[in-house]
Formats: sequence, structure tokens, C-alpha cells
Amino acid sequence: MKKFINNVDNMLTESLSGFAAAHHDLVSLHLEPNFVTRKHKASNKVAIISGGGSGHEPLHAGYIGYGMLDAACPGQVFTSPTPDQMLTAAETVHADKGILFIVKNYAGDVMNFEMAAEMLPFEHATVLTSDDCAVINSTYTTGRRGVAGTVIVEKCVGSLAETGADLATCKALGDLVNARTASIGVALTSCTVPAAGRPTFDISDTEIEMGVGIHGEPGRRREAMREADAIVKDCIQAILADLQATLATDTNKEILLLVNGLGATPLMELYLIYHKAASLLQQAHLTIARSLVGNYTTAIDMAGASITVCVLNDTIKTLWDAPVHTPALRWGC
Amino acid sequence: MKKFINNVDNMLTESLSGFAAAHHDLVSLHLEPNFVTRKHKASNKVAIISGGGSGHEPLHAGYIGYGMLDAACPGQVFTSPTPDQMLTAAETVHADKGILFIVKNYAGDVMNFEMAAEMLPFEHATVLTSDDCAVINSTYTTGRRGVAGTVIVEKCVGSLAETGADLATCKALGDLVNARTASIGVALTSCTVPAAGRPTFDISDTEIEMGVGIHGEPGRRREAMREADAIVKDCIQAILADLQATLATDTNKEILLLVNGLGATPLMELYLIYHKAASLLQQAHLTIARSLVGNYTTAIDMAGASITVCVLNDTIKTLWDAPVHTPALRWGC
Repeated sequence: MKKFINNVDNMLTESLSGFAAAHHDLVSLHLEPNFVTRKHKASNKVAIISGGGSGHEPLHAGYIGYGMLDAACPGQVFTSPTPDQMLTAAETVHADKGILFIVKNYAGDVMNFEMAAEMLPFEHATVLTSDDCAVINSTYTTGRRGVAGTVIVEKCVGSLAETGADLATCKALGDLVNARTASIGVALTSCTVPAAGRPTFDISDTEIEMGVGIHGEPGRRREAMREADAIVKDCIQAILADLQATLATDTNKEILLLVNGLGATPLMELYLIYHKAASLLQQAHLTIARSLVGNYTTAIDMAGASITVCVLNDTIKTLWDAPVHTPALRWGC
Repeated sequence: MKKFINNVDNMLTESLSGFAAAHHDLVSLHLEPNFVTRKHKASNKVAIISGGGSGHEPLHAGYIGYGMLDAACPGQVFTSPTPDQMLTAAETVHADKGILFIVKNYAGDVMNFEMAAEMLPFEHATVLTSDDCAVINSTYTTGRRGVAGTVIVEKCVGSLAETGADLATCKALGDLVNARTASIGVALTSCTVPAAGRPTFDISDTEIEMGVGIHGEPGRRREAMREADAIVKDCIQAILADLQATLATDTNKEILLLVNGLGATPLMELYLIYHKAASLLQQAHLTIARSLVGNYTTAIDMAGASITVCVLNDTIKTLWDAPVHTPALRWGC
């Protein structure tokens, strides 16, 4: 394992300290328990808190700021944060309109956020993200996994909360965006968890893992490596099948297309994937109204990519376009 | 070689097409010869054009837009663009105040941009970037290499040009920013050029290449892999030695610190590097007034990072802060 680290035990704290220093105009770091908040506490809005294991950067701390999260609770790499983190973060950012947790659907995260919720002295609700259409159950999860579509949920709910919307409205919007979003990932290589020191799974030079999870969980099947267009075609087919019911009742046929790098994939390849994905989606009579290409939900150092499609409606499109000012996503500010 | 490609010959065109489609609100793609321009042509300003081999994305096309470039000319991977690209791009974006080329100091790029300049029917000048303090001469170059500091030059010159500054003033500012900027890179792995199909150089699991170039050129020396803090310390020492004369006459002691990923390095590690680099620079009585952390000048899929320090003055700081709206860098717009 070759990584820029000093020792595995300090890695998270050192990295969070660098993150907080580099973005000191936007965020504040709190240690023991670990959580990151906006630099300037928002008032009179639903406070949005997310979190989960580290190793998916910029998710979640990179999305703290105006128009997205109020706080994020990072666990160790691929390890859920503990309830004291969420509880202390909630006490710090609560702004008189309740707490909304946005949680990716993994057993550990769900359990720990639930425990925190039970202890919360404030009105609260939770949006579970489950956009991965690759598999129903997998290592770590019961039910579908939450992956890169989480970014879209966090962006739209975050912007809605800025308008002063109440907790129930924010929760309902988050559930709606999640229900209209589907993702699938593909791995060319494994990731390497620092504490493990070796690749999470073995994969040969002639194989890919179709439907891989963001922790290296098994996907739909191990397949032969082939040209990019064929891989992208399989991904788009899986996504369109998953969104079939939503698209059948949708009249606008407008989508947001997110091509996400899993950590070690060059931008040049992500744009090549986007090129084919966009072409196939247009052939399916969909209009790509919004796009995002880059590393937004990673799996440490995995070479691979995921494709996410969110079926827009006027509300979601307006919320996506609303100003956002975070370390990793910024426009209109 | 496992990459998301269809065939090596079409890779660049497919990737550029995806880039242009994803950012169709900002850029326009022109093919044969290949160049990318702003969607909406600017008027009455110096037109800023950069370019170079592909494989360093988001450099350069990712920096096209308000406050940075007017056009970029991408060559094949790690291969200079040809003069017809720069010439046609210049004819397309010229806006009555001359053309400024920003060129990284590599023999092929310098020669081809010079040939284009000789044929240009407009007033023109060239800023050569040479921020890499690792080595004086190297594969591809005579004199110091241009690396991630190029982004800072493009940002500051681009913002100056928006104010209506004339060609000589833009050229002088570009040279000034370049002279006040130093970078050094370190590789944990080689990159793999798609057309070659195998890693550019061999490196064992216990070695690093200190001072590596963005094409995988040899650096200062092959060293033993060690903890991140020790690697960062060597990088900062090299940078401070290189900037000694500038810092000796500078009174503000304010710097911009850029920690740049070379393609396959997780953001978590880049922030860990930032943490140590910032600490060492503060110990050297420097104030980190501005920061940037992420993949801004890559070497395809190399695991590695570079550190860049630009010694700010009031003019450079103001230009850095000015609004920018490009696919890869955006604020204030």
C-alpha cells in the first residue's frame, strides 16, 4: 500500500484538519466528537446533517455551506460515525426548525443515526438515500445502497431548507428526489482501505465489477473488460429499467446526468463516459437538462466510475439551480 | 491497461465531445483543427489562449470562460497541439486587443506556439510558464517545466484581461506571477499513456519519484517511500529554496498554497498533505492567504501530488479573487 499517510490512526484527524484549514472561510472543525459545521451558523431554517464513513470525499464535509449541509459527521474510513457525533452536531447547528438527517442506506449508518435521533431533544426526520440500482441487498446494507445520488438529494434539500421550508416539506422533497434517482457503478480496480493495507477485492486485468458499491461491495456480476461504450450501454440500460415507472408518468422527460469518478479515474475518461451516456439517454427521448462530471462520491482510490440519472421536475430543477457555496460545489454565490 | 476507452485513436475526440456537451452553456468545441472556445465570444479584450498535450485535465479546456481563457488547443495525450490549431483558435477569439499565448515550457509546445505566433496577423505575446523547481532540464524541456502553477498564471492573467488591460500589461503580469511561483511533484506510481498501453516508468512498491514531471519525466531522485510528513517537508524545503530571492524582498509574506492531485490520489490524502504543508509554511513565517486543493493539473492516472506556492502581492491577490466562471474553477459568478 502506497499512500500519503503518516499512520493509519491519525489519518482522519490530519486530513480533516487540512480540510478545515483550506476552507476556513466556510467551515469549522470540531474534534472529539468529530464533526464539521458551517463557519457561520444559519438561523431559522431546518438544519441539514449528513455523515458516514470517510473515504468518499468530497462527500459529505465538502458539501457543507450555504445551500447544502449545516454539518457533517465523518466516521473512520468506511466506518459509520457514532451517535455522539450526530447528537453534538445537531445541538450545535439546530436553528429552531428541527433537524433533518440525510443518511446513505447502510446498516451501520442507519443504526447510528437512529440512535442519535432517539436522543435528540428537537423535532427531527431522516431521509434515507438508496439510489444504487445495482443490487437490492449487499455487504453493509439491507435494501438498496445510497451512492452518488446522495449529492443530488443533499443539494436540493439544502436549497429548499434555505427558503425556510419546514421539516416535513424538506423530508418529503428528499424522499422525492431519492425516488426519482438511480445510479450504477463499475470498478476497474479495487480500493485499498488504509487500515487493511491491501485491496478489498481481487480483480484481474481482464475483468470489471459491474454494479460495484462505493466500499468495493460486490455488484451484479464480474464481467470481461470491454470497450467503454459497451460498459456505458449496460449501465444506462440498468438505470432506465430502474426508472421506468417514474419516466412513464413524467411529462417533461428532463434529467440531470451525473458521471462520477470513484477516485482514480482521469477526467478525460469521465467525459468520454458522459459522451456515450448522453447519446444513449437522448436516444431514449430524454433531455439532459443539467450535468455534473467529476469526483463527487468516491471509493478512496478505486479506478471506476458511476452514472446517476435524476428525473427532474420543475421544483427539483429550480432547487438544483439555486445558489450553493460549499468547498466542493459552488455556483450563484 | 484498463481504461474507459473505445479505441486510442478516437479517445480525444470522444472526450472533448463529452466535455463540450456537459458544459455547453460555457464552451464551444471546434474540430479539425481541434480547439475549444468560450460559448460567447468576448469583446474588446486581450484574447488569452493556452493549450498543450491532453492528459492534464482539467488543464486547459476546463479553464475556458469568464475570467480565464478565451480558447484552449488540446493535442493528443502528452503531445503538443499543432500551429494550425492555435492559428484558427486565435482567428476565432481575437477581440481587437491582441492575442496572449500561455504556454507551458516544453520543447514541442514552445516550437508549435512559436510557429503559430509567426503566422498570426494580430499583435501577440507569449507567457512561458516554468514553475517546476524540481529540475532545470528534463525529457521534453529545455529549462524548467511548466506544471500546476500554470493554473494560477491563467487565472490572474485571465482576470486582468477582463479589465481591458492591454497586451503588454497582461504579458508582464503573467511573467510576474510565474516568477513568484514554484512547484514540485512526487509520484507514487507511473501514469499510463493510452497509446503506449503500459506504464511510462517502473517504480517499486517501496519507492517514490521526488520531483516527477506531469508526463512522468524523471525528477530529482528516486527515493525510499516514507511517511507523508517527511515527503511534504522535502517538497516545502525545495520550494522555499527556490523562492528565497522573491521572499527576501517581499514584505507581505502572503502566499497562495495549491495542493494538486496528479490523477489517482484521494482528496483525503491531498488534505493531509495540505495540513503538513500549511504547518511548515507557517513555521517559515508565511501567511497562507489563499488555498486550493484538488485535481487541477493531472498526469492522467498517476498516483501522486504536487505542491505549488505563489508569493502574492496586492495585485495578484485581487486578480486571484476576481470572479471566474469556467467548468473547473468558479467563484463570484
